[in-house]
Amino acid sequence: MDIASLLGIILCFVMMIFGIWNGAGIENLVKEYADVPSAIITFGGAFAATLTSHSLADYINGLKSFTLVFKAPALNTTEMIRKIIDLSNVARKEGLLSLEEAASDMDDAFLKKGILLMVDGTDPELVRAIMETELVSIEGRHKTCIGFWDTLGAMGPAWGMIGTLIGLVDMLYHMDNVATLGPAMAVALITTFYGSVLANAICIPVSNKLKADNEAEMMLKEVMIEGLLSIQAGENPRVIEEKLKSFLSPKDRESAGGDAGGEE
Amino acid sequence: MDIASLLGIILCFVMMIFGIWNGAGIENLVKEYADVPSAIITFGGAFAATLTSHSLADYINGLKSFTLVFKAPALNTTEMIRKIIDLSNVARKEGLLSLEEAASDMDDAFLKKGILLMVDGTDPELVRAIMETELVSIEGRHKTCIGFWDTLGAMGPAWGMIGTLIGLVDMLYHMDNVATLGPAMAVALITTFYGSVLANAICIPVSNKLKADNEAEMMLKEVMIEGLLSIQAGENPRVIEEKLKSFLSPKDRESAGGDAGGEE
Amino acid sequence: MDIASLLGIILCFVMMIFGIWNGAGIENLVKEYADVPSAIITFGGAFAATLTSHSLADYINGLKSFTLVFKAPALNTTEMIRKIIDLSNVARKEGLLSLEEAASDMDDAFLKKGILLMVDGTDPELVRAIMETELVSIEGRHKTCIGFWDTLGAMGPAWGMIGTLIGLVDMLYHMDNVATLGPAMAVALITTFYGSVLANAICIPVSNKLKADNEAEMMLKEVMIEGLLSIQAGENPRVIEEKLKSFLSPKDRESAGGDAGGEE
Amino acid sequence: MDIASLLGIILCFVMMIFGIWNGAGIENLVKEYADVPSAIITFGGAFAATLTSHSLADYINGLKSFTLVFKAPALNTTEMIRKIIDLSNVARKEGLLSLEEAASDMDDAFLKKGILLMVDGTDPELVRAIMETELVSIEGRHKTCIGFWDTLGAMGPAWGMIGTLIGLVDMLYHMDNVATLGPAMAVALITTFYGSVLANAICIPVSNKLKADNEAEMMLKEVMIEGLLSIQAGENPRVIEEKLKSFLSPKDRESAGGDAGGEE
Amino acid sequence: MDIASLLGIILCFVMMIFGIWNGAGIENLVKEYADVPSAIITFGGAFAATLTSHSLADYINGLKSFTLVFKAPALNTTEMIRKIIDLSNVARKEGLLSLEEAASDMDDAFLKKGILLMVDGTDPELVRAIMETELVSIEGRHKTCIGFWDTLGAMGPAWGMIGTLIGLVDMLYHMDNVATLGPAMAVALITTFYGSVLANAICIPVSNKLKADNEAEMMLKEVMIEGLLSIQAGENPRVIEEKLKSFLSPKDRESAGGDAGGEE
Repeated sequence: MDIASLLGIILCFVMMIFGIWNGAGIENLVKEYADVPSAIITFGGAFAATLTSHSLADYINGLKSFTLVFKAPALNTTEMIRKIIDLSNVARKEGLLSLEEAASDMDDAFLKKGILLMVDGTDPELVRAIMETELVSIEGRHKTCIGFWDTLGAMGPAWGMIGTLIGLVDMLYHMDNVATLGPAMAVALITTFYGSVLANAICIPVSNKLKADNEAEMMLKEVMIEGLLSIQAGENPRVIEEKLKSFLSPKDRESAGGDAGGEE
Repeated sequence: MDIASLLGIILCFVMMIFGIWNGAGIENLVKEYADVPSAIITFGGAFAATLTSHSLADYINGLKSFTLVFKAPALNTTEMIRKIIDLSNVARKEGLLSLEEAASDMDDAFLKKGILLMVDGTDPELVRAIMETELVSIEGRHKTCIGFWDTLGAMGPAWGMIGTLIGLVDMLYHMDNVATLGPAMAVALITTFYGSVLANAICIPVSNKLKADNEAEMMLKEVMIEGLLSIQAGENPRVIEEKLKSFLSPKDRESAGGDAGGEE
Repeated sequence: MDIASLLGIILCFVMMIFGIWNGAGIENLVKEYADVPSAIITFGGAFAATLTSHSLADYINGLKSFTLVFKAPALNTTEMIRKIIDLSNVARKEGLLSLEEAASDMDDAFLKKGILLMVDGTDPELVRAIMETELVSIEGRHKTCIGFWDTLGAMGPAWGMIGTLIGLVDMLYHMDNVATLGPAMAVALITTFYGSVLANAICIPVSNKLKADNEAEMMLKEVMIEGLLSIQAGENPRVIEEKLKSFLSPKDRESAGGDAGGEE
Repeated sequence: MDIASLLGIILCFVMMIFGIWNGAGIENLVKEYADVPSAIITFGGAFAATLTSHSLADYINGLKSFTLVFKAPALNTTEMIRKIIDLSNVARKEGLLSLEEAASDMDDAFLKKGILLMVDGTDPELVRAIMETELVSIEGRHKTCIGFWDTLGAMGPAWGMIGTLIGLVDMLYHMDNVATLGPAMAVALITTFYGSVLANAICIPVSNKLKADNEAEMMLKEVMIEGLLSIQAGENPRVIEEKLKSFLSPKDRESAGGDAGGEE
Repeated sequence: MDIASLLGIILCFVMMIFGIWNGAGIENLVKEYADVPSAIITFGGAFAATLTSHSLADYINGLKSFTLVFKAPALNTTEMIRKIIDLSNVARKEGLLSLEEAASDMDDAFLKKGILLMVDGTDPELVRAIMETELVSIEGRHKTCIGFWDTLGAMGPAWGMIGTLIGLVDMLYHMDNVATLGPAMAVALITTFYGSVLANAICIPVSNKLKADNEAEMMLKEVMIEGLLSIQAGENPRVIEEKLKSFLSPKDRESAGGDAGGEE
């Protein structure tokens, strides 16, 4: 459970409701700020335009990826490095074939696949090619999800503005009744408000988080590829450790074991 | 038939009409929101500026590419991988020349061309060079179409604003007649409304969809190139399967046959 | 003569004048919308800021490149490929030296230079290096022209806004005279109108067109480089044809001669 | 202590307070411009949306990186080059192993690590790979911090606008009371003001500064890698000096010792 | 002296003053448009935020680079090519060592350094590496200056808007006095006006010009590297001429000597 994103989204709505409560009074929260037709046109338009932008499968995957934001990554890089060093020790003592057993305990399918390729005696160049193709296509799938949220985040304010224009045009045709002018314009602005909230409380932060998660996962998978290929090349476990620790910050390096590294 | 894009565009207009119906009443849909001169200046200006931006041939291709959005891709990657594995089995048992017959049944002209080049005994490097040149120039043509929609999507709001400025200037010269002020400004805003709808209900989603379709097609064609070159190199069908499945998500991989792969 | 761009620019102004005619009446076209001082500040400011942005030579070249938009490309890729295949046949039958004569009939200086380098017996690596350097520096010069129109297209609206701010400030100092308020604001807005028209009817479309023309020319020149180097390497004319046709769309390929290729 | 950034931030607030003092009078600074609920919604919303965008660890690191802006870089490139030339002289005279002692005096952990790898007799290719991996992952961590400020700088104005929309909607519902109209709109605008200040006095400048610091540090570390690998290759100290001075401006080169170099 | 940029900046201010003179009358130029406190907050804020963004040294270099805009480049590419061809003739006739004398007359420190490296018998790979490192770090220093003007150009309008918000908030608190409303809002808008002028008359054009100058200088230095390495490789002066002329436009080529080249 990644508490940051959940807390962030909740706090965004707390701030918004606080602003309404402080300004208009909580009794006007629903009366002034909740307008079902405005919500339908803004959210409906934004989701419909996003539906046009993607195939149905990508659209559904995009929607589903919302929950990924709250999921903590299963493994961190420090643990993964320790695991690979263990594997390199096993491989050195008992041979590459002994890794088959170790692989059966692995949770991570990517690492497991790499080990099985090695155990099968696949050529190192081919192991690297297969694992990098997989890495690239995983990233491609991640980017499709990120693209969903980017599109929705751009379409929210756009359809908010379309709703506001619809309201303004009608208001301008009925300017004789001054008493209704204010409320009519207020209703027109509500769609802009909804579009901004959709983009800035949900879509843009979710897209940012998915980008950060993708980068962390790509880095972790690169550690795995480097590590496995070093094991296959029969490199010294100490050298492998040195190599892999370069991916870590000096602070994390210490908790993973050994010697100091460079960065102020 | 790709239902998502069709549904998306229809829903966009449903949302817009709902917004008008709910606010101004359906009886005002035409009276307040349909203004032929505003449509002429906004759409006319946007299409004219887009015409300046492209050669006539690219302009017509761009317009035509609208229908591509509703066309489901002919082949998915999973099927293509199965087809290539079949080819690799045929080639292994009966030799490369036997693929000539298989090629005659192929729908996909790109794959067919690749097979015929192999059957002709073309040098692998040259096969790759020819197929990649073709891939790059297909992508170039796709990007020209995408560019058409990007330009039109930028020109819609721009010409909407030009129309609004034309209306505002005239309105400001006749501010003495307060009764006509509102309707005059309403008419001025209609062009901004039309420009926003053109961009956000049509052009930007169509451009997004064409980009996604292009990426999927490029990935499919890369699978073909990798697969054919592996067949030409006489690689083991099991290794080819392993290689090509790296392009798939773990879920699709199972439906394509064999073993698990990595991704959480 | 490329009719699209000329027609596009004319239509943009037709749309604009239609909008004014329909709204304000044609008798107000000059009275309300033509304001020489507004034109001087908007266009003067935009051109002056663009002058600061470039050296005098680049500025003049940028201005001159406006006419290129209306010039149809001299040669299309299909014809060029046919010409290169002819050359490869000549070279095969009568030797590389026989191309000297063929070169003397060539209109295209780039192709001619390549042939002469080959006839001189220049090393293939050096031929490629010289031709690619030329290609890169042609593109550099094109980009300078494109940059001129991009800068002018950004400066148009910016100086339109500066003009509007100058008008607004003065208007706000004289708000007591309500009768002149409307016309004063109308005049203030005219500069924004001029800036938008400069950008969206001229500069952005011209920049887009020059970009598309540049890409087409770069592709044509890459075809020439590939073709000439294949001739120099003594490749089979049929292989050269296959190679060069990969640059074409399937439709154009048929008109250039031979066999089908891949793309849905 | 890097005085520029501290001075810059202080001056930004001095300018702002001067503007208020000059316009509204210092007695209105708190009355008109300090509004706690507006601050809560703008800053609260912006920080909450940024929290959604990052994991908790990255969020805290991002916040902490604020102080880095005021920290002067520990070493400049000129001194580093002199230090590496000294090391190359030591290595030439007393052998690579003698560098172990020199390393023990080093402050910079990155340089120290490189020296220890060399002293251990690590293969030069591996030394380069390990040091470049470290360089890339240091840059990755820097970019995460920069991303924090970029997100916060985008979210500030966005939440400022959300706050203003909340205020405007309520104001429009109560337009009958003309006396409170002005102050109500003033309060609504305060959130936009706060969002702009957050972005333009703090976040964007901090992000710019961290980017510049990162580039300087990356250049320094590249100097170290080039220098150490030249030492390991046993190159002549004079050649190493020539090589490393190419990283410096002609002015700095003179202060680092030797001969002139090119740049007007 | 590059007249274009100087003329451009002067004309920008002429246009602005003309706009004021034509609209408000020259007697109001100072009264309405010159407001010292507005200038302090806009320019002060923009320069202060830019100071935060850079180290003090980069800030001062950025400011100083303003004068570079008016400086014509010392050497043009055509002359440089002629000079290198002369050098290649000298080297061919009298040997590489004879270039030492030629170098002593050179103005250009970059070319001189390259010649001296060659005369010292430095390995060609090392000559290229040293000269390219220098080229990259010269470009890095140029980009720091360009970045200064980009930051200032973004901060101008941003602080203009902050100033306008400060003025608007105060104005909205005092809406009862209708007589002062207009002038108060005029003063508020002045900061936006100043920010726009700072960006669009100065910063963006200066940044554009520095970018163009940088590209021209990088091209010139690449010509030098290519030329010197060809001389060191002992290539034929005619081949070197052919190679280097590819950097020129056909028009300039003729003035530099020999044969025609390709570009329509």
